[in-house]
Amino acid sequence: ASGTRVPPFAGQPTFLSAPARTVDPVNPDFSGLDVALLGIPMDLGVTNRPGSRFGPRALRTIERIGPYNHVLDCVPVGDLAMADIGDVPFRGRYRLEECHEDIEAWVDKIAEAGVVPISVGGDHSITHPIMKALGRTRPVGMIHIDAHCDTSGPFDGTKFHHGGPFRNAVLDGVLDPQRTIQIGIRGSSEYLWEFSADSGMTVIHAEEITDAGLPGLIARARDIVGDGPTYLSFDIDSLDPAFAPGTGTPEVGGLTTREALALLRGMKGLNLIGADIVEVAPQYDATTNTAQAGAQVLFELASLMCFSQAAGRKSA
Amino acid sequence: ASGTRVPPFAGQPTFLSAPARTVDPVNPDFSGLDVALLGIPMDLGVTNRPGSRFGPRALRTIERIGPYNHVLDCVPVGDLAMADIGDVPFRGRYRLEECHEDIEAWVDKIAEAGVVPISVGGDHSITHPIMKALGRTRPVGMIHIDAHCDTSGPFDGTKFHHGGPFRNAVLDGVLDPQRTIQIGIRGSSEYLWEFSADSGMTVIHAEEITDAGLPGLIARARDIVGDGPTYLSFDIDSLDPAFAPGTGTPEVGGLTTREALALLRGMKGLNLIGADIVEVAPQYDATTNTAQAGAQVLFELASLMCFSQAAGRKSA
Amino acid sequence: ASGTRVPPFAGQPTFLSAPARTVDPVNPDFSGLDVALLGIPMDLGVTNRPGSRFGPRALRTIERIGPYNHVLDCVPVGDLAMADIGDVPFRGRYRLEECHEDIEAWVDKIAEAGVVPISVGGDHSITHPIMKALGRTRPVGMIHIDAHCDTSGPFDGTKFHHGGPFRNAVLDGVLDPQRTIQIGIRGSSEYLWEFSADSGMTVIHAEEITDAGLPGLIARARDIVGDGPTYLSFDIDSLDPAFAPGTGTPEVGGLTTREALALLRGMKGLNLIGADIVEVAPQYDATTNTAQAGAQVLFELASLMCFSQAAGRKSA
Amino acid sequence: ASGTRVPPFAGQPTFLSAPARTVDPVNPDFSGLDVALLGIPMDLGVTNRPGSRFGPRALRTIERIGPYNHVLDCVPVGDLAMADIGDVPFRGRYRLEECHEDIEAWVDKIAEAGVVPISVGGDHSITHPIMKALGRTRPVGMIHIDAHCDTSGPFDGTKFHHGGPFRNAVLDGVLDPQRTIQIGIRGSSEYLWEFSADSGMTVIHAEEITDAGLPGLIARARDIVGDGPTYLSFDIDSLDPAFAPGTGTPEVGGLTTREALALLRGMKGLNLIGADIVEVAPQYDATTNTAQAGAQVLFELASLMCFSQAAGRKSA
Amino acid sequence: ASGTRVPPFAGQPTFLSAPARTVDPVNPDFSGLDVALLGIPMDLGVTNRPGSRFGPRALRTIERIGPYNHVLDCVPVGDLAMADIGDVPFRGRYRLEECHEDIEAWVDKIAEAGVVPISVGGDHSITHPIMKALGRTRPVGMIHIDAHCDTSGPFDGTKFHHGGPFRNAVLDGVLDPQRTIQIGIRGSSEYLWEFSADSGMTVIHAEEITDAGLPGLIARARDIVGDGPTYLSFDIDSLDPAFAPGTGTPEVGGLTTREALALLRGMKGLNLIGADIVEVAPQYDATTNTAQAGAQVLFELASLMCFSQAAGRKSA
Amino acid sequence: ASGTRVPPFAGQPTFLSAPARTVDPVNPDFSGLDVALLGIPMDLGVTNRPGSRFGPRALRTIERIGPYNHVLDCVPVGDLAMADIGDVPFRGRYRLEECHEDIEAWVDKIAEAGVVPISVGGDHSITHPIMKALGRTRPVGMIHIDAHCDTSGPFDGTKFHHGGPFRNAVLDGVLDPQRTIQIGIRGSSEYLWEFSADSGMTVIHAEEITDAGLPGLIARARDIVGDGPTYLSFDIDSLDPAFAPGTGTPEVGGLTTREALALLRGMKGLNLIGADIVEVAPQYDATTNTAQAGAQVLFELASLMCFSQAAGRKSA
Repeated sequence: ASGTRVPPFAGQPTFLSAPARTVDPVNPDFSGLDVALLGIPMDLGVTNRPGSRFGPRALRTIERIGPYNHVLDCVPVGDLAMADIGDVPFRGRYRLEECHEDIEAWVDKIAEAGVVPISVGGDHSITHPIMKALGRTRPVGMIHIDAHCDTSGPFDGTKFHHGGPFRNAVLDGVLDPQRTIQIGIRGSSEYLWEFSADSGMTVIHAEEITDAGLPGLIARARDIVGDGPTYLSFDIDSLDPAFAPGTGTPEVGGLTTREALALLRGMKGLNLIGADIVEVAPQYDATTNTAQAGAQVLFELASLMCFSQAAGRKSA
Repeated sequence: ASGTRVPPFAGQPTFLSAPARTVDPVNPDFSGLDVALLGIPMDLGVTNRPGSRFGPRALRTIERIGPYNHVLDCVPVGDLAMADIGDVPFRGRYRLEECHEDIEAWVDKIAEAGVVPISVGGDHSITHPIMKALGRTRPVGMIHIDAHCDTSGPFDGTKFHHGGPFRNAVLDGVLDPQRTIQIGIRGSSEYLWEFSADSGMTVIHAEEITDAGLPGLIARARDIVGDGPTYLSFDIDSLDPAFAPGTGTPEVGGLTTREALALLRGMKGLNLIGADIVEVAPQYDATTNTAQAGAQVLFELASLMCFSQAAGRKSA
Repeated sequence: ASGTRVPPFAGQPTFLSAPARTVDPVNPDFSGLDVALLGIPMDLGVTNRPGSRFGPRALRTIERIGPYNHVLDCVPVGDLAMADIGDVPFRGRYRLEECHEDIEAWVDKIAEAGVVPISVGGDHSITHPIMKALGRTRPVGMIHIDAHCDTSGPFDGTKFHHGGPFRNAVLDGVLDPQRTIQIGIRGSSEYLWEFSADSGMTVIHAEEITDAGLPGLIARARDIVGDGPTYLSFDIDSLDPAFAPGTGTPEVGGLTTREALALLRGMKGLNLIGADIVEVAPQYDATTNTAQAGAQVLFELASLMCFSQAAGRKSA
Repeated sequence: ASGTRVPPFAGQPTFLSAPARTVDPVNPDFSGLDVALLGIPMDLGVTNRPGSRFGPRALRTIERIGPYNHVLDCVPVGDLAMADIGDVPFRGRYRLEECHEDIEAWVDKIAEAGVVPISVGGDHSITHPIMKALGRTRPVGMIHIDAHCDTSGPFDGTKFHHGGPFRNAVLDGVLDPQRTIQIGIRGSSEYLWEFSADSGMTVIHAEEITDAGLPGLIARARDIVGDGPTYLSFDIDSLDPAFAPGTGTPEVGGLTTREALALLRGMKGLNLIGADIVEVAPQYDATTNTAQAGAQVLFELASLMCFSQAAGRKSA
Repeated sequence: ASGTRVPPFAGQPTFLSAPARTVDPVNPDFSGLDVALLGIPMDLGVTNRPGSRFGPRALRTIERIGPYNHVLDCVPVGDLAMADIGDVPFRGRYRLEECHEDIEAWVDKIAEAGVVPISVGGDHSITHPIMKALGRTRPVGMIHIDAHCDTSGPFDGTKFHHGGPFRNAVLDGVLDPQRTIQIGIRGSSEYLWEFSADSGMTVIHAEEITDAGLPGLIARARDIVGDGPTYLSFDIDSLDPAFAPGTGTPEVGGLTTREALALLRGMKGLNLIGADIVEVAPQYDATTNTAQAGAQVLFELASLMCFSQAAGRKSA
Repeated sequence: ASGTRVPPFAGQPTFLSAPARTVDPVNPDFSGLDVALLGIPMDLGVTNRPGSRFGPRALRTIERIGPYNHVLDCVPVGDLAMADIGDVPFRGRYRLEECHEDIEAWVDKIAEAGVVPISVGGDHSITHPIMKALGRTRPVGMIHIDAHCDTSGPFDGTKFHHGGPFRNAVLDGVLDPQRTIQIGIRGSSEYLWEFSADSGMTVIHAEEITDAGLPGLIARARDIVGDGPTYLSFDIDSLDPAFAPGTGTPEVGGLTTREALALLRGMKGLNLIGADIVEVAPQYDATTNTAQAGAQVLFELASLMCFSQAAGRKSA
């Protein structure tokens, strides 16, 4: 009871203070892992403010997240074999589509190794190639917490921007819109997201949340995704800018962190085959609140894996 | 569906990306407009921190507000003839009363042209001269969202400071206190605002809001102002400093942006003859959250005009 | 009604703009005071980010707190004889235990003079020596609002760090765990706080607050502490980092200021024999929101003293 | 002598408070202008921190630059027909090469109209397409003030990144390396810039400047470029980060603003056919110092045009 | 050698940690003082960004300035009877001219008591009324370190703005232009300051300083003011914004702090009858560098008084 | 020439992007290294603002320092076997003397392995235990660049604070004062540093540097330390706060980075047996300029080791 602890400000920083694991980009070895924490420092898909390429670095340098999740009752970095495996090895930093190919290829290898990826973006366009890797054999369901539906079509010459990953994923057959719920939606681009409704996704706007109540929302979400393979994607801009100013497309009127944590914890036991936290842009984060919130979300995602069939040992 | 959009970071900034309209200060022509968005960069009335003279500039430079309001179902800058007409032409920047005269004269001309003004302050003292212009023929009612009643008397040699515009407006016969509701009130100056109760205004304190519930509050507000001509004045310090730190007289314990947006949207269909958003002081706004919230409020005000008899075409 | 007021930005700053009272460190004279506002600029007990040694200075320089509390209906600096008596005179700034001795000795003298101390930290370890002074003759009860239970045991060679003051206080017989309630608890260190439950404290987690409701929580707290001598300790990290980023061990998912104010005001009439506000670290407070919130809490604590048997005149 | 001035915080902001001129992207009309101030909000070429797409907006919102340059004795916005013509109309925001084509095409039209362009970046890669437009008939000379030579070769699959514009320009035959001087060079990438020496450019490192002395440097620069058509490119990272922190690739040990202004003013009378100020990234500019410095540089560039054969009237 | 020191972060802050002296506004008693440090929190005279009303508070809260000046070899707060006497008691915060009257009246009383005032602004307009008090019987000479000459005429309806105090002082016969030197001048308003040259002031531009050399400048300044009564006015914007961003009208290309300190120390032995440090606006001072520099200047001013006939004991 | 580079924002951060080497705290193995880069996150010795415990983390997260030093012509991380070996393993974070023992023991082991340590503080008190390890057999000489002499005696009950390491080192016989030069000295504590002169150190004040000239200073420094074993200690507060605001005891009037780099590079070929960069406190570093400067200094220190007999291979 009176020993020594490593202070939170010491050492080389990693996600959730998980062990750093060096992975060879050419012949990667992921053996022995249940869950891989990986950075995807790519923000070429943004429509407005860039900067989330620094998101992985920002989350690594947050102190004091973990080890114990008393609400979910688990110690994710201890209960599961989990490591910070570094960042996706990119061929270059200048071409959006090429980066997407690199992401897909890397996550492919992680998934082939039977390891569940939790990714730290980067902008939200990264979820499209991740889903292409994870939903290849069977489309996944999705819990999507965000200010934006991200189901808009091509413009400015590309469909791969961060406003459209879920339209792309559905059209590629890797995301099941019927098993998709989008929570926290707001802003002034609703007219761009008709695809959400048309394809059968369930959309919960931010302004509906207080009346709906979190228990009801959680039940509805669990009902929609069921026990099939499910992906959880958390865009930090789902939070109100008061809680998360450090992001590229902030939208006033969002979730509180207490609501977000309750939502995430309500997903205990879902069959999660991957997850991400995206769009933390530390340039706009004068207090580091956004990175703090992002790291806490990462911790909750890691915790949920303790109870997921796909990832976990606890279920064994 | 695959064209080109102007990025939010491009071009010379205007309020809500509305068209810039150059107006001659001497012989102004407002013809063809339904609504004028105007800046009033004047903060000589503050009791504490100055800085809101930079409020108009701060709101102009916010990106990505609009075009579509999915809650109110309108595209204000498209549905109405609306322009950023620049700032009130002042004779000088050193005399509070002189500035008030200039504001009154300018709004007079706007109103005479049958145009509805939405003003961006500047400190809250500006609402007094605006009301003198708009309530000349008949006192207006008011939805007032603020941390402070702003009904205190003269001190330090003037009654025109930002703590007293609504006392002045009532005493000048341009504001009807019986048709006035003040929402979000708090702080430690209650003893200065006896005039609110004495004159018949309805005062809703911040600490009453959770229990009262927003639907009840909205109903009460609509009942109080009725269908007569009504002004809507939004002081950014009604929001909690967590949501809006960039203001001169912050008060802990305020509204969330979600509450504020719900309140504003609840005013759909009121007969609004003018509105303002005041007290954004960007010097204290390290994250630009305050300006974001202010621009969003401006967007909601513009949206409400789509449904106001006074401004709008939709009612036609 | 038209006189002159001292502007909030003028003069040498003191807590709540209370009168500055110079006290001789060797032969202190506290006569004539009901309540002493004192700074304890000491942060040697932190586990992570230091900086709260600047907490007292930060709270002194906040403008515009007070004079009137309209919810509790009192003017604390007027209703009670209250002064800013400066900071605890320390023998040095390098030894945690020595500082604790100095705090205890100083508060001893304040208490001996029949004066109620309201302390501004500094880190939370300071509450242990304060309690040793105040609970000497009879253990005190406690309203404790915090993100952390602060009942963990020794590590890194000391038990006097800021994670353990209340374990220490119970073991020293100066704090009655049965009359203790801890509100706002969260984070990932729950496994370190078994002492709270084992000793009989009541622990209310942050995630329980929405469902519990504030009126219920207040009633429960009042019931637990009863009418015996009670201490109120407010750690600014009980607030969500959105409201109070400027602290050393922030925890996402906390209280809003509106909740915190309601909780505090719900304690009107308790027999408070001392109180503190701790852990404001202005280095992390880009907007000064944290210091604003801290100063407001200080004002509420001062207001509560107007209704406490121990401090007050109103009860006379 | 006692009239009214427009305050620097009023109105819709433009570069140097020059008149805003709306130009049709399809059929642009630049007639009547001597000099066009244009924004190029594009940062797809950066190697590290993005953000300079917000550079034009940042420079537009700086107050109080101009009107009179007492060192050069001119009033650029008055002496020349000069306007803020808005930003380059891009087809999209996602493809570096496409953006370069759009820049080249737009500057082509400006140059064809006999107007001298002063561009505000954006990252430094923009100077390559600008030079392609301006050096088409005859290669230009260059005064280049920067921390980096920007003459490195392709990597990450492209040669169009911001580390290589001047290699590209030389290889395209639009920049004359013998008439090029690079001033302020430093950092740890010298091994990437062999092309500078190999092609015959003159390179002055930051660490040589104190000993060289500014008058000597100026004389040398004037000698190198002679009286042929010359371009002036100013990268804000030439300044030390103490003077200009808001940039993507800061290098410790740079120029002071006083040195930079002296250098620029020393170029009076050169035959400048265009100029730019690039790499202002306001996300990293907590004090707005970088934007201030950038706007001042823009003012000096505009002033120099008063004395350039290519642009000016004064020479007439 | 091993005693205890009061830490710089402890206690109620005052200028230079000098003793706080409470002065009755109605019947002030300044007896026993050699030098009075006073705040003048007034910024109604600014042309652009307000905020220097918080200058006195900002300088009081800087830690660790003093006690010993090893260059000038003095301990000003010990060698002279010096106190922080608080701020000028104003009748109100809304009228520029009224504030000027209050300043003049207060400094009159200080001067009548034979005490030398060192004032902390506030904007630079305050020096005019100070000079009216100090130069009543004989016009003073002046060492003026600033980015601006501050000799422009009336506009916007007043001559009392912060751009004109020294024109006003000369015209009022309280400042001797022949005994005035202005150092550090730059910016783009030179055309407004013809009065400086016309009246016989010596103007040294920022761009001349490197070549002139500090020893030469100091000699010239000493020669100009001679041994008559002299005032020293230091505008923080004389420093480059890299050193002092926190001010209302920053001008790129200014002095370094090392230059400024050398200049000030070069004035040892002048017959200084008063001094000020003005225009610190902490809202724009993200690093507190400006307030640090301002407090250091204040310390140098206080040190110079040790060697001034007017103030000092050392000369006795 | 057209391959792929790892972007500066990718991966787990280490000092100078050097390889991370995990070292067992109990049985450390440093074999194969020439130089060890180590963090010492300890700030218990500060007299004022704490925070430099986050210094190592701050320097690790700076991007783009290295690989090539064109002035010294070396690639330190390639030319020497160099690794980031993590931080000193401390027994605890609460006791200054205990931490010093742990530092001494750890550096002892590094030195015994024949490895040269370059340490990243932490506060300056760490240099005392480092010197005890490195000067055990023979006292070292020192190049000391700092605002403060750090030779003051005990106070507040300890001599181990950050104001006295070099007095302690001399008295312990591990530092040779005759072979010590202190450069950049200023501030108002000169009276505390008599030991410097008394013991025979050479002290160069900041205000002497311009006149002395850097070449002269460098020659003098080289002459003083000679070719004996020498330590180089760089306190970031030697830089002016404009260049390095992020530190605990800033002193106006300091070095520029260009001067500091020139000084450091002037030490090429000295027999350096260790070095450190201390006092970076990122809490006060709004622009990260201080960490940038600190990382650049670290790079220069690493570069100097390429030419030091003690460390290097080049000399082989």
